[in-house]
Formats: sequence, C-alpha cells, structure tokens
Amino acid sequence: MLATKNLIYICGLMNNKPVLHTILSPRLLDIYDVSNSIVVIIDVFRATSTISTALFNGAAKVIPVDNVAKCIELGNATLNSITAGERDGKIIEGLAHGNSPAEYPRSFVEGKTLVLTTTNGTKLLHMALKKGADEVITGSFTNLSAVCDHLAAQQKNVILGCSAWKDKFNLEDTLFAGAVISRIKEQFTVHCDSSLMAEDMYHLHKNDMKDFIRHTTHWHRLAAFGLEKDLEYCVSEDVANILPVYKNGALTV
Amino acid sequence: MLATKNLIYICGLMNNKPVLHTILSPRLLDIYDVSNSIVVIIDVFRATSTISTALFNGAAKVIPVDNVAKCIELGNATLNSITAGERDGKIIEGLAHGNSPAEYPRSFVEGKTLVLTTTNGTKLLHMALKKGADEVITGSFTNLSAVCDHLAAQQKNVILGCSAWKDKFNLEDTLFAGAVISRIKEQFTVHCDSSLMAEDMYHLHKNDMKDFIRHTTHWHRLAAFGLEKDLEYCVSEDVANILPVYKNGALTV
Repeated sequence: MLATKNLIYICGLMNNKPVLHTILSPRLLDIYDVSNSIVVIIDVFRATSTISTALFNGAAKVIPVDNVAKCIELGNATLNSITAGERDGKIIEGLAHGNSPAEYPRSFVEGKTLVLTTTNGTKLLHMALKKGADEVITGSFTNLSAVCDHLAAQQKNVILGCSAWKDKFNLEDTLFAGAVISRIKEQFTVHCDSSLMAEDMYHLHKNDMKDFIRHTTHWHRLAAFGLEKDLEYCVSEDVANILPVYKNGALTV
Repeated sequence: MLATKNLIYICGLMNNKPVLHTILSPRLLDIYDVSNSIVVIIDVFRATSTISTALFNGAAKVIPVDNVAKCIELGNATLNSITAGERDGKIIEGLAHGNSPAEYPRSFVEGKTLVLTTTNGTKLLHMALKKGADEVITGSFTNLSAVCDHLAAQQKNVILGCSAWKDKFNLEDTLFAGAVISRIKEQFTVHCDSSLMAEDMYHLHKNDMKDFIRHTTHWHRLAAFGLEKDLEYCVSEDVANILPVYKNGALTV
C-alpha cells in the first residue's frame, strides 16, 4: 500500500512545486529545514509594518538590532541615521524615536538609515540566518502583495515565520501568514497544520479584521498606550507595498 | 491611564476566576507557569483517546512510558499487564498490542494494567510533572465532558497542553482545546491568543469534524495504515467519558 503522505509528496515533486510551511513561534524554527528556503519574518505589531513603511517612504535602509546598546553604537557610527525602539509603548532612553510606522513619513525618513531595535522579529531574523536561510525578507499586511508576488515568482521553498510575543503564539502574525497562503497556495505544496489553521483563521476574519484584532492579547498590550490607529494601520493591506530584503546586515528594497 | 490588560487582570481577580491557557506544543510549555495548575495532556490521535477508552472499559490503570525498553521492563514486572505501542502504524517488536482504542474492549482490558509507550503525550506529561503541575489529567473528545466537569468544579488555574507531533503544531489537539474552552470559558479568565484561536477553530469545524480531520497532516500519516475508523472514534464526544488522573506513576479513574 502506498502511504497517502508519500502520494502527496510524490504529487508535489511531480508538479515541481516547492514546499511552504508556517512556524508559529521562534521556538519551533529549528524543527524545520530552512536551508534553501526563503524565510519571511512576520512581526505585524509593529516591527515589520514599520520596516516596510520606512522603506516605502524612501529610507535608505533599515538595520534591525536586538539590543539597545548596539542600536546606539550603530546610530553613532552611521551618517544620517535614526535610532529607534520602544519598550512598553515608550521610546527607550538613549534612542531618538519609537516603533510606530506613523513616525516615519517621507518628509522625515527619506534617505536616512533607520537603526531599529526590536525583540521578537529581530531574534527570529537572526535565527533564520544562522540556520542557513537562502533569503530573508520581511512581511506584514502593509506589504502583502509585494511578499506574495516575490514568493510566487521565486518558486523556492518558503517558511512563513511568525515572530510571536516572547515566543508565545500570536494571532496577528498568524493571520498574515494565512493571507499569504490564501493568495499563493496553488503554486506550493502546503501540507502542514499550522498553514491550514492560519488560512482558516484568515478567511474567518478577513472581513472583520479591524474589529477582530481588538480581541488579541497584543491589542490589549498596545492599545493601553493609545496605539489603536497604529494597529489598524498594521493590518491594512498594501499601504506600504515594497519588499524589504535582508542583505549585508540591513533591509533594503 | 489604567492599562486595559491591567483592567482585565483586575476583573479576573475581582471575579475570583482562575486563569486558563492553551499550549500548542511541548516546546512552549516552559514559557508558562504550570505550578498550582491542572495540566490537561491532550493527544487526540491517539494516546489520550486510547487511555480514556481502556480505563472506561475497566482497565485497573494505564502506565504511560516514553520508551520501549521501559515498557517491556514494566510489563514483565507487573501482574496481569499488557504492553502496547506502535511506530508507523505497526505494533513495536517486543510489545504485545498497538495504540488503537479499538483494541481495548471491556472483554479484553478489564482489570488489567496497560503499559503504553507513546512519544508526544508521555513527553508532555513528564514535562508538566517536572515543572510542578498541581495535577495532571488526560483529555480527548472521548472524555470531553468528564474533563470539563472536573475543571469547572476544581476552580484552579488550567493549562490545556497539546502534545503536538514531534513538537509541531497539530489541529486535532487544538480542536479539543477549543471544545473545552467553548464549554467552560465563563468560569475562567481566558486571555491568550492560543485559546482564542482554538475556540474559533472548534466553532468553525464542530459540525464537520469527521470531514475536517481528513485535511490534517496526522490523518494523512495514520489513514495510510487503514486507521480511518480509529481517527473518527477519537473525535467522537464522550464515548469513553471518564477522567484519567495521574498519580504515583499511573493513570487511574
């Protein structure tokens, strides 16, 4: 008897379709083979939304760093740079700006280098690189189409990497993974429960996204700091529709 | 300004409601505080379904072990015992029976001790004990009501622990967590995205459960071995409605 899983695998090969997986927390990354894959770093509230917005508005590059000391050091060493980062809704002492996409209009950010310290997203990005990812890009609803177009064109294996919150599963990153899957699944072999769930959740909530996110834990965490408009922006499709690609330590378009 | 999360926390305390969390993989267990909590080990396909079935049918106890050598050793040392375990749909060499709930009717299992080797569920069970869980019970759709009645009566903090598959997220365990949450949430403070998602997924699929499970990766893994009836049984509510509680190395009613 030929096992169904083998049949599916063989069908995938016969169709010459690359494989797409979704990872719900950085803690689960090392269960998967990320080599020869494009890894999409997803941190919807708000790192990857801010990154796409800054680059869409003409930032020269974004350097994601995982701690404040490195952020200040790189900021001092880089001409025309902005240091940015928040903890608990406030700009971190020693840095100049926050994590809000609204802080980076073209009039302010154009031509500058944004040195951004984030926790969840940057951690996952470095993990993916260390594990030999072929390419690392960042995604959020703000650049949904750019991400989907790129993945569909490349025809490589894909890992949709949810940054989560301190390793805990979160819904906003999962909903974005589901949005990507719903658009490009025909071109991939998608055979993991995380992806199936993410797509289900996206279809369930795509028409009430701005209401539904009010139920997430991250909403409660950030809305307390008056960031409701920010969060609604972060789930708006294609409002900063460029593709940030990580190369030589920085994200550029 | 009083943060919304603080408000929710305070409301929880004022209502004197214990907290309920869902954990989607054993890898995520140590992010949560399991001390003073009841941990529900969930391994729907098929360990915790088989455990409730054997006990419902009169087994004296079930001893879950994490490897074959220990299973054989305990089987030899225990009067009136059955050793059981499968890998890839076949009974493991050296053991007498498999992982199927259908193998344990009353006529066979009554009064006996089932020494069962499983991977995902047993691993999570031992992790929960090591981290100081107050009580460990096992749950599956087969004993949904017994689990819910117990949790509602105890009024302690609850961790719904999905055993997953080699640490990868799976849908069947998540759907069961959602079923529990949908029944008892009013008596708990439920404020985590995993629980919100699990309940959404349960409501989405509760009326097409036996069709929907055909899309899960575990279905494809096991159905290839002709286990379709087994898997449909495992998502049947209350067909073996007792409460397995772990004490002194064994699960008993």
